[in-house]
Amino acid sequence: MGLLPPGLAKANMGLLAFGVENQLVNILVLNAGSSSQKCCLYQLPHDAPWPEKPIPPLWSGCGDWGHYDDHAELTVQSYPEGADEAGVSLAWNINDPSPTHVIEALLATLWTGPAAVITSVDEIDCVGHRVVHGGPTYTRPERLTPTVKQEITAAIPFAPLHNPANLNGIGVMEELLGPTVPQVAVFDTAFHRQMPPVAKIYPLPYALFEQGIQRYGFHGISHAHVSHQASLILNRDLHDLALITCHLGNGCSLAAVKQGRCVDTTMGFTPTAGLMMGTRCGDLDPGILVYLARQGYSPEELDQLINRQSGLVGVSGISSDLREILAAVATGNSQAQLAYDLYIYHLQAKISSLIPALGRLDALVFTAGVGENSPQVRRDVCHGLAWLGLDLNEALNSQHPRDQDIAMTHSHIRVLVIHTQEDWAIAQACWENLTRT
Amino acid sequence: MGLLPPGLAKANMGLLAFGVENQLVNILVLNAGSSSQKCCLYQLPHDAPWPEKPIPPLWSGCGDWGHYDDHAELTVQSYPEGADEAGVSLAWNINDPSPTHVIEALLATLWTGPAAVITSVDEIDCVGHRVVHGGPTYTRPERLTPTVKQEITAAIPFAPLHNPANLNGIGVMEELLGPTVPQVAVFDTAFHRQMPPVAKIYPLPYALFEQGIQRYGFHGISHAHVSHQASLILNRDLHDLALITCHLGNGCSLAAVKQGRCVDTTMGFTPTAGLMMGTRCGDLDPGILVYLARQGYSPEELDQLINRQSGLVGVSGISSDLREILAAVATGNSQAQLAYDLYIYHLQAKISSLIPALGRLDALVFTAGVGENSPQVRRDVCHGLAWLGLDLNEALNSQHPRDQDIAMTHSHIRVLVIHTQEDWAIAQACWENLTRT
Repeated sequence: MGLLPPGLAKANMGLLAFGVENQLVNILVLNAGSSSQKCCLYQLPHDAPWPEKPIPPLWSGCGDWGHYDDHAELTVQSYPEGADEAGVSLAWNINDPSPTHVIEALLATLWTGPAAVITSVDEIDCVGHRVVHGGPTYTRPERLTPTVKQEITAAIPFAPLHNPANLNGIGVMEELLGPTVPQVAVFDTAFHRQMPPVAKIYPLPYALFEQGIQRYGFHGISHAHVSHQASLILNRDLHDLALITCHLGNGCSLAAVKQGRCVDTTMGFTPTAGLMMGTRCGDLDPGILVYLARQGYSPEELDQLINRQSGLVGVSGISSDLREILAAVATGNSQAQLAYDLYIYHLQAKISSLIPALGRLDALVFTAGVGENSPQVRRDVCHGLAWLGLDLNEALNSQHPRDQDIAMTHSHIRVLVIHTQEDWAIAQACWENLTRT
Repeated sequence: MGLLPPGLAKANMGLLAFGVENQLVNILVLNAGSSSQKCCLYQLPHDAPWPEKPIPPLWSGCGDWGHYDDHAELTVQSYPEGADEAGVSLAWNINDPSPTHVIEALLATLWTGPAAVITSVDEIDCVGHRVVHGGPTYTRPERLTPTVKQEITAAIPFAPLHNPANLNGIGVMEELLGPTVPQVAVFDTAFHRQMPPVAKIYPLPYALFEQGIQRYGFHGISHAHVSHQASLILNRDLHDLALITCHLGNGCSLAAVKQGRCVDTTMGFTPTAGLMMGTRCGDLDPGILVYLARQGYSPEELDQLINRQSGLVGVSGISSDLREILAAVATGNSQAQLAYDLYIYHLQAKISSLIPALGRLDALVFTAGVGENSPQVRRDVCHGLAWLGLDLNEALNSQHPRDQDIAMTHSHIRVLVIHTQEDWAIAQACWENLTRT
């Protein structure tokens, strides 16, 4: 509680102190990638309900060491005078690009220097962590305990780059805050763990399912968030809706959401599965990998092939960035055209493949980098779904829509563009966890 | 030409001798598997058009050495007195189960002994071979020449079990008949080679496409045949139809057929791809194979896993035979139920995924062992497609339909059950090749 003396806040854990008026709740969100670290702080009045519409973070930081061997680039954006006032931007490099050092350097600006929005680390009331893989167990966010950390550790073989980074971030925050400030793990897999058995199991020997080779799915925080936002925009109860949410960014996945529950998704055991992406191939004839393995490809080479050298960059030979592909298409580059056509073709096929799991389709939701910002992708995907009675309003589609319905009035299926805000969704999970305490 | 002296028939190759009235054309069809050999002989009047409805073969033989190390089991069914008279059945074993010996032993009964329907080998006018893999080039049946044999040989890496068996059968027939009797290769891949680029290419590095790692598809002879039969049953021009043909047997594949042309199919580089099958897994998250390879699976073990230990038998732990799965379901076996549910679920998803390639769907065609004989599979698949306006006539569905429409009159989509006859389709390709000569 930002206005309480630190000791009192600590003593009165969780929402026990929420009776005091005008208090603010500070929720810190950590989102660790394999070569980057994002974090942000939301400040909310404790005595109001959780806002229906997301508010921006008061402070956000990003550290990136993916492109450099010897340093990390850090940036911070902050609003010390409040969200409506002019902000402060910081940018600097550090020489020790270890994830721990990056987190500590970013967080120091939270309570020290020109970007500070709190007076000390003790004002942080809760920390939410995006955790990529929750293993087979977790179907919702979990307050971090030794058991939960054990499960995250147990899932490392399934997310060898991400889960260790998440555990590192959790450890750093425990060091900084001590054990009493609640930390919440928000899993990218949790939303999909509600899927029925036919969506969780592969047509492989059942023993492999029991060994954890299951369809987990990813981007769950985003899919869940935009599903809720869709129900608000449509002004319909989420429990009456059959949605397909299209998270199209560097990674791409779809979720089929029926009555608020995920019933299927396109990513699976790994985030390589499902759709064609920037550098990943999506679902594949498994016979190809056996063929290549017999030709001498090592597991590492196969990994590189399917995760780094495929997708848009593999087919086009140009780029994994859809904007660059579209620029090349505009100049008449036929390889770029083929890559783009294939990307759209697979999207149309996978969207259609999810409808039987829903029984009907009410709305198609586009989100994330490409989904929010490429009118061409939305138009071309929708064009191939005209047989569903889906009719896009091309004018609305081209006018930078955000959080709105861009289907024609007579369209049988609504088409929404929704800005995904995973950090906000993680903060909400913290809030709900605090409230439940 | 059956009624001509052998020397004359040879001298007047092809249809040059067709001017003589009442002549019969004898077309031998060879269908070689990796551990079986089927063959049959069709006898048709040369001066009539090709029959719209398939006629049965006058003679058919089968050799099977898949289950035995030291011998092969041979059976022959023949109608020496004509197709409407009582037939002759033979069954015997031979000790040398080499493919060559099996073919020679079967064919000897064609002109010798109680099953004989011709007087000598010289009465064979044309031989049609089912060739599994035609490589990237062939889009239709081809008269066998040294060049065509070279292409079949070049495609051996893509079909290591089947193409050598096909080449062996071709060689045996050349020995028996000499070089002048026309032989025609009818490719299981040819129908699919008409697919547009987006259906042929994988989202892998383009260099792999150029090295032949393309989506070929299989069962093409069957998909092409039932598409034509569907247009006859519906009494509509094939060029006005958008069809999905479901070939469901031990192997399972779908084809999307638009205006008579295959625009997509579910099998790909290998017949492991696409749908869940009896022992094959279909399309998969490629990350699973990389994960298993890192755990120590060899290419051979991965091959066994995806081709022999997956699908219905993998999930159920019971059987790869759908009839046995359904029997276990009837006794309340939950693993069998899960396997069956997954099989149906994937079928519904894959059928739906093909509709964008067609732009609409006019009819769904069920064929092959399961497709023709399992009313339960047809019912359960169609049930999950009700959102398309598809409504099955459950009474017709349960009454052993064959070559008929089993949708309700008001259904937006027709549902057909069609008996596939690949041998007949191969004979037709021979006929057309002779006629073109």
